[in-house]
Amino acid sequence: MSYCNRLEERNTLTYVLLLLGYCLFLSPLTVSAQTLADRLGYPSGTKLIIVHADDLGETHAVNAAAIKTLEEGSINSASLMVPCPWFPEIADYAKSHPEVDFGLHLTVTSERVYYRWGPVAASDKVPSLLDEYRYFHHDWEHNQHINANEVEIELRAQIERALAMGVRPTHLDSHQYRLIVNGKDLFDVLLRVAHEYKLPVFVTRDWFPDHPYLQESLGPDDIVLDHTVTIGPEVPAEKWAEFYISGLKHLKPGVTEFVIHPGFDDEELRAATRERSTWGAAWRQRDFDFFTSDQFRQILAQDNIKLITWRDLAKMVARK
Amino acid sequence: MSYCNRLEERNTLTYVLLLLGYCLFLSPLTVSAQTLADRLGYPSGTKLIIVHADDLGETHAVNAAAIKTLEEGSINSASLMVPCPWFPEIADYAKSHPEVDFGLHLTVTSERVYYRWGPVAASDKVPSLLDEYRYFHHDWEHNQHINANEVEIELRAQIERALAMGVRPTHLDSHQYRLIVNGKDLFDVLLRVAHEYKLPVFVTRDWFPDHPYLQESLGPDDIVLDHTVTIGPEVPAEKWAEFYISGLKHLKPGVTEFVIHPGFDDEELRAATRERSTWGAAWRQRDFDFFTSDQFRQILAQDNIKLITWRDLAKMVARK
Repeated sequence: MSYCNRLEERNTLTYVLLLLGYCLFLSPLTVSAQTLADRLGYPSGTKLIIVHADDLGETHAVNAAAIKTLEEGSINSASLMVPCPWFPEIADYAKSHPEVDFGLHLTVTSERVYYRWGPVAASDKVPSLLDEYRYFHHDWEHNQHINANEVEIELRAQIERALAMGVRPTHLDSHQYRLIVNGKDLFDVLLRVAHEYKLPVFVTRDWFPDHPYLQESLGPDDIVLDHTVTIGPEVPAEKWAEFYISGLKHLKPGVTEFVIHPGFDDEELRAATRERSTWGAAWRQRDFDFFTSDQFRQILAQDNIKLITWRDLAKMVARK
Repeated sequence: MSYCNRLEERNTLTYVLLLLGYCLFLSPLTVSAQTLADRLGYPSGTKLIIVHADDLGETHAVNAAAIKTLEEGSINSASLMVPCPWFPEIADYAKSHPEVDFGLHLTVTSERVYYRWGPVAASDKVPSLLDEYRYFHHDWEHNQHINANEVEIELRAQIERALAMGVRPTHLDSHQYRLIVNGKDLFDVLLRVAHEYKLPVFVTRDWFPDHPYLQESLGPDDIVLDHTVTIGPEVPAEKWAEFYISGLKHLKPGVTEFVIHPGFDDEELRAATRERSTWGAAWRQRDFDFFTSDQFRQILAQDNIKLITWRDLAKMVARK
């Protein structure tokens, strides 16, 4: 249990940092004069959101919920975990729905206890990423040595598998933000690989105060979102809708990515996530329920919030 | 679809061969004078069965059904697929229930389409076992080159992971019978590894007529079951119970392993097996239903059929 508790503490810490970033963006002091929306030619003050589902490929319950929300228009973007057992299901869907905005949710941890996965690269090429059973580490301990070259080998293997299986990704992001928050070395690997494959990376200005190396490494051609909103373990279940409504009502001009985790609270997902409630089955069902609600759609219409995808962003930036 | 059809044809062929073996054992001509039961000291004519669930670790629905049938006494033996995503769940159960008769269901194929897995060994050490995406092949084509040395590397990696995770296996068997029916080279690898780890291998005399190399390779200290019963795709759903009842009513003296595939016909298993109905979710639910039925228990009692496990067999042979 102590290991799980440590995991949870680390996850909580990560999300507290992310939420701090979100709070900072609410302060007018940190809002830059020129947002990504400005750069894209939208009238000043336009509010755009990407409603982005994470973790596709991890379980069937997540794939099924994501496909339903994509087809009903509740979300408009998502990213896929290539090393996970259900990746073939969602890759098949992506191949037959090339218009959908799918990125790759690059994954170098296997955070669950009863249901796990390992690397796409040969395990003897990426030993620092693996535990003694050849799964990805549950999580990275504070003093864990993660070899950046091995991360690069694994990221390339994941992208190559996705391409070979017919996925045409629109962007890259990082499962559990590992490649964002763990220092310049890993972020530079992510950025180098992204540039090579000509794919934008999900980065937001909200993160710059806590991780200044992000801004240092990014170049003028990189897409940087203005803001992000994601829910954390400090929000009780009964306040779920309230959190998202507040996020939408206080939305700032620019492009904001809502990072959400829809899934169905069924036998499979309950079993796969049962060692802790954070990002568990009930959590994911709550995300599914809010983003498929009439309330969510009504707020978008009432507040004139526009939807944008990574495909739109890449195209519009390319046109400039 | 044609690929799936070919898969199904090959599976069907394998099971037709196995069922032919079963038919042969019904003929008095092939019943040896000395059965394993005789060797173990049981009175002549004793009928013993192992009720054995395959494929644990493959999905949660299979693990959950197997645990329920083990705890209710409907099955008394099972084997675990180490490369599969849900192996950690069943390994954890095995570790905390060391009295249960768990073997390893050595796995070198990944026969599904939407849900897949790869090797435990480093993928660059076992290239002949893998497809272009680094999953195990769906199945082995007729002219597929499978390198026996690579099979040995993979089997050792599976056993070592299981031991490291606290599983103490009682026996070895082979998923889809690949290491049994594909020739002497692979069977000899299986037998060599089994001898090294001092584990019995599931082999039955029923298979000798079709695969004479089995008998040639086995030594006097190897355990050989007398018979096996397993259901095949030629049995329609409504004849399921009838098939098993007939198998039990016509049981011959000696040790017979009933190889069954219990699982729950739920969202996860339906999705994981949806490309074909053979060994699918409904199939596995039917196995669960028959072997947890009062009818099954009544026949065992009425016909004085005794239960035996691989643990019993290994112990009793060791005592002799």
